[in-house]
Amino acid sequence: MKDFDTFKELQKTQKAYQYVLTLASWDSNTEAPKASFPFRSEMLGIISGEHFSLLTDKEYVETVNDLYENGEDLNNRQTREIEKAKKNLDKIVKIPKRDYIEYSKLLNNAQKAWEESKEDSDYEAFKPYLEKIIAMKKKMVSFRQKENQHAYDVLLDDFEEGMTMEKYDAFFNTVKEELVPFVKDILKKKSDEAPAFVKKSYPVDKQKEFVEYLLDVFDFKKDRGVLKESVHPFTWNTHSKDVRFTTSYHENYVFSSVFAAIHELGHATYEQQVDDVFDMTNLKSGASMGIHESQSRFYENMIGRSKPFWNTHLSKFKSMFPSQMKTIEVDDFYQAINRVDETFIRIEADELTYPLHILIRYEIERMIFNDEVTVEELPSIWNKKVKEYLNLDVKKDSDGLLQDVHWSNGMFGYFPTYALGSAYAAQIYYTLIEDIEFEKLVEENRIDKINKWLRNKIHCYGSSLKPREIMEKVTGEPFNPKYYIRYLKEKYSDLYLK
Amino acid sequence: MKDFDTFKELQKTQKAYQYVLTLASWDSNTEAPKASFPFRSEMLGIISGEHFSLLTDKEYVETVNDLYENGEDLNNRQTREIEKAKKNLDKIVKIPKRDYIEYSKLLNNAQKAWEESKEDSDYEAFKPYLEKIIAMKKKMVSFRQKENQHAYDVLLDDFEEGMTMEKYDAFFNTVKEELVPFVKDILKKKSDEAPAFVKKSYPVDKQKEFVEYLLDVFDFKKDRGVLKESVHPFTWNTHSKDVRFTTSYHENYVFSSVFAAIHELGHATYEQQVDDVFDMTNLKSGASMGIHESQSRFYENMIGRSKPFWNTHLSKFKSMFPSQMKTIEVDDFYQAINRVDETFIRIEADELTYPLHILIRYEIERMIFNDEVTVEELPSIWNKKVKEYLNLDVKKDSDGLLQDVHWSNGMFGYFPTYALGSAYAAQIYYTLIEDIEFEKLVEENRIDKINKWLRNKIHCYGSSLKPREIMEKVTGEPFNPKYYIRYLKEKYSDLYLK
Repeated sequence: MKDFDTFKELQKTQKAYQYVLTLASWDSNTEAPKASFPFRSEMLGIISGEHFSLLTDKEYVETVNDLYENGEDLNNRQTREIEKAKKNLDKIVKIPKRDYIEYSKLLNNAQKAWEESKEDSDYEAFKPYLEKIIAMKKKMVSFRQKENQHAYDVLLDDFEEGMTMEKYDAFFNTVKEELVPFVKDILKKKSDEAPAFVKKSYPVDKQKEFVEYLLDVFDFKKDRGVLKESVHPFTWNTHSKDVRFTTSYHENYVFSSVFAAIHELGHATYEQQVDDVFDMTNLKSGASMGIHESQSRFYENMIGRSKPFWNTHLSKFKSMFPSQMKTIEVDDFYQAINRVDETFIRIEADELTYPLHILIRYEIERMIFNDEVTVEELPSIWNKKVKEYLNLDVKKDSDGLLQDVHWSNGMFGYFPTYALGSAYAAQIYYTLIEDIEFEKLVEENRIDKINKWLRNKIHCYGSSLKPREIMEKVTGEPFNPKYYIRYLKEKYSDLYLK
Repeated sequence: MKDFDTFKELQKTQKAYQYVLTLASWDSNTEAPKASFPFRSEMLGIISGEHFSLLTDKEYVETVNDLYENGEDLNNRQTREIEKAKKNLDKIVKIPKRDYIEYSKLLNNAQKAWEESKEDSDYEAFKPYLEKIIAMKKKMVSFRQKENQHAYDVLLDDFEEGMTMEKYDAFFNTVKEELVPFVKDILKKKSDEAPAFVKKSYPVDKQKEFVEYLLDVFDFKKDRGVLKESVHPFTWNTHSKDVRFTTSYHENYVFSSVFAAIHELGHATYEQQVDDVFDMTNLKSGASMGIHESQSRFYENMIGRSKPFWNTHLSKFKSMFPSQMKTIEVDDFYQAINRVDETFIRIEADELTYPLHILIRYEIERMIFNDEVTVEELPSIWNKKVKEYLNLDVKKDSDGLLQDVHWSNGMFGYFPTYALGSAYAAQIYYTLIEDIEFEKLVEENRIDKINKWLRNKIHCYGSSLKPREIMEKVTGEPFNPKYYIRYLKEKYSDLYLK
C-alpha cells in the first residue's frame, strides 16, 4: 500500500507550482503591464505544463487511488485530504487528453466571441459557440458520471459538494413560491428614483481612505494581507497568512466601491481565519463556493447594510464627504443602501431581487442539461422568465442571457451557489444572534468579536468539513431555506411595508 | 556535436523558472505581507531547487560546453549567447556542492549579523563573519581562477566583463590625482548649510504626483512598465515589455525621492529599449553593471541635475509646492540640487564626492584580495582613507565600513562599477552633445529624442555587445577617465569657483 507521506511529499511539490502560478495570476490581474502578456503566457505555459505533468504523474495517481481504495488506517483529516485529491484527480485524468485540449481551445475562442457578441448584443454570433460548449460539457461530464447520476448533478456537486438538483429544486421552489409574490408587493411601494446623494460625485482618493478605514473596522490583519485595485473585485490567497483582495472605485457610485470592499472583506476574513495547520494541505481554503459566499454576503448585507453599522460609521463617512452628505441622516442612508428596484443586470441587483436572477439561471441550466431546451430557444425562454419573475421586458440580449461571462467559460452549476450563499448566511445569522449580541457588537464597533465567533464556528475548519457538516454543526440542522425567506421578509417589510 | 537548438530549448525552460522566481521577488520586495514569508520561502525553495537542477542538468552542461569548444559554425550572436551561458555555468558547476551550500548558509547568517552589528555600530560582532566570508570567497574564486589570474580580477570581471585591476588602477589613480585635490578646493568654497527649502516638508502624495509627471517627461512607456514604492529604490525586469521600478518617498527630503526616481528611470528606459529580438535569449538585459549605471547616472546627473531641465520643469514643481518653493528661482534650485558636502555615507554623497567613496572601497578590496590587510585592521584603514580623501573623522563604524550591505553579501568587486558608470556616462555625454543638441532638447522637453539616440547607440544591443565594444562603438575610443574628470571640473568650477 502506498504511503500517506508519499502523497504529502508529491503534493508539496505540486503546491509550489500552484503557488507561483497563483502569484503570477495576482500580478496579471492587478498590475502586469499590458504589453507583457504574450511573453508572460509563453513562460507561464511552460510552468503550467510542468504543473500538469506533476498532477497526472503516474506515482501520484497511483498513490491517491491506492489511498482512496485502501485508506482504512487514515485518520479523519487524512481521509478528507485523500477524498478531495481523488475528486480533483478524476476531473483531470478521466478526461481523454484529446477532449481536454479541444475543450480548452474552444473556451479560449468562445471567450472572445462572447465579449464581441455581448458588445453588439448579437446572440447569433455567440450561439454556435454556446452550442458546442454545451455539447462538449455534456461529453466531458459523461466521463465522470456515476451510474444513474444526472449530468447536471455532477456539475452542481463540482461547485458545491453534496448539492443536487433535488436539493436545489427544494430551495428554488421555496424562493419561487414565497419570494416572487413578496417582491411584487415591495416593488409596488418603491420610489421611482434613488435619492440624489447616491449618484453624486465622490472623489476616489477619499473613497480609498474610507475603504482603508473599513479594513480596521472589520479587523482585517494587514500583516497577513493586501488591499489593491482591479477592474473586477476579487479575493485571492495562497494560505492563511497571505490573503489579498481588490476592490474597484467608481467616482459616481460610491456605494458600489464600499459594498464591494465589504463583500470581499468577508471572503478575505474567512481565508485569514483558516487554521494554519491546513497551510500545507488541500484543506487550507474555505469549505465551498456556497459557504464562502455566505461569509461575504453576511459581511456585506447583515453587517454592512444594517442600521447599527451606520449608526456608528455614518459620521466618519459624512466627515469625508461633507458636501455630498450634508443633510443625510442615518434613516435616509439606511433606506438608500437597501433600495429595491427591478433591473435586468444581475450584478447590479439589490439584495431582495438578486435571488430571482439566480432562479432564472438555475431553471435554464436545469433545462439545458435535461435536454428540454435548444440553444435556439434560450433567449425567448430567458426573456419569458425575466417577465414572469421581475416583470421586465428584455429589449436586447446583452441585457439578457448574454450578460454573464460564466457560460462562455463552461461554468454551468456555478450560479446557484450565489443564492445558496445568501441563504446559508441567513440561517447562520439566526443562530449567531442567539449566541452573541450581534447588533450591540456591530454598533460598538467590536466586529472582532463577531469574527471570533465565525472563526470558531466556521472559518478555522478550512475545507476539512463539508458544507453540509458545517451547516449542521453551526446551526444544529441541515440547510433550510426558510431562514432566508424569513430574513428577507422581516427586513424588507420593515423597510417598505410599515 | 550538440545542436544550438537544443541549447535554446533547454534554456527556454530554465527561463520560465527564472521568470516566476523573478516575479515572486518583485512581489516580495513591493507588497507581499510580512507574515507570508515562511510559507513563501518554503514554496519558492522548491521552485529554486528545480531551477538549479535544470541549470546543472547533464544535457545542458554538455550542450553548453560542446558549443563553447566547437562553436565554429555559430554566428556572432549565437557565439555571444554561448559565451555568456558558459560563464554563468562555470560559476555554478565548478564549485563543489558542499562549498556552495556552506557559503550560502554563511551568507544567510552574515546578513543578520551585519544588520545587528551596524545597528549597534559593533564591528567586533561582524568581524568573524567577514573573516569567513573573505576566506570562503577566496576559496570559491580559486575553483574558477585561470592560471596567473588574480583572484580580485575574477571578481571584477564578474561585475564588469573585461575589467581588471590594471584597468581600474589606471582609472582610480586618475581619480586620486585629479579629483581629490579639486574636491578639496571646492569644499573650501561650499556653504555651511543647505538652503532652508531643501529640508522643508513636502507632502508625499504631491511628490507622487510629481514623479508621475516625470514618467511622461522621460517618456517612460507605461504599457510596458510599472512604477511602485519600496524601501530601497530598484529596477526590475523580465524582458523589454515588462520593466518595473520603484522609488521611495521622504516627506522631509523631496530631492531624494525625485532623483532616485530619475535614476531608476535611467535603468528602466535602458531595459525598455533593448531590442525584442533578445527577449528569449540571455542577451535581453543591459550590457553590464557599469553600462547600466552609466545610463541611470546620465539621467540623474546630466539631465536631472542640469539647468536646462529645471528651466522647463521648475514651474511645474513650484505649482505643486507653492508654499515651500515660494521665493526659489532656477539658479537657487540648480545650486541646491548640486550642493557639494563631505559626508560619511556613500549613498548620501553628492555627484562630486561620490567617486571618492568608491575609491576608498576599491583600494580596500584590492588590499584584501592581495592579502595586504587583516580583517582586524580594516576599520583603521577605512578611517585613515576617509580622513585622507574626505577630511572626515569617522567616529563610529556604522558610519564607516559597516555602512554598506555588499560585503555581508559576499559582493566584492561590485563597488567599482558605480564609479565606472559615472565615468562611462561622462564619456558618452561628450559624444552625445556633438551629435545632438542636448541642452536644447532637454529644455524643449524632447527627452524622447535623447532616448532615441541612446537606444540606437547603446540600449538596443542588450548584452549582445561587451561593455568595451559599446564604449568604442559609441565614443570611438576605449574607456578613458579624462572625460569624467573634465565633466566634473567644468560643472563644479562653474558652480563654485566662478
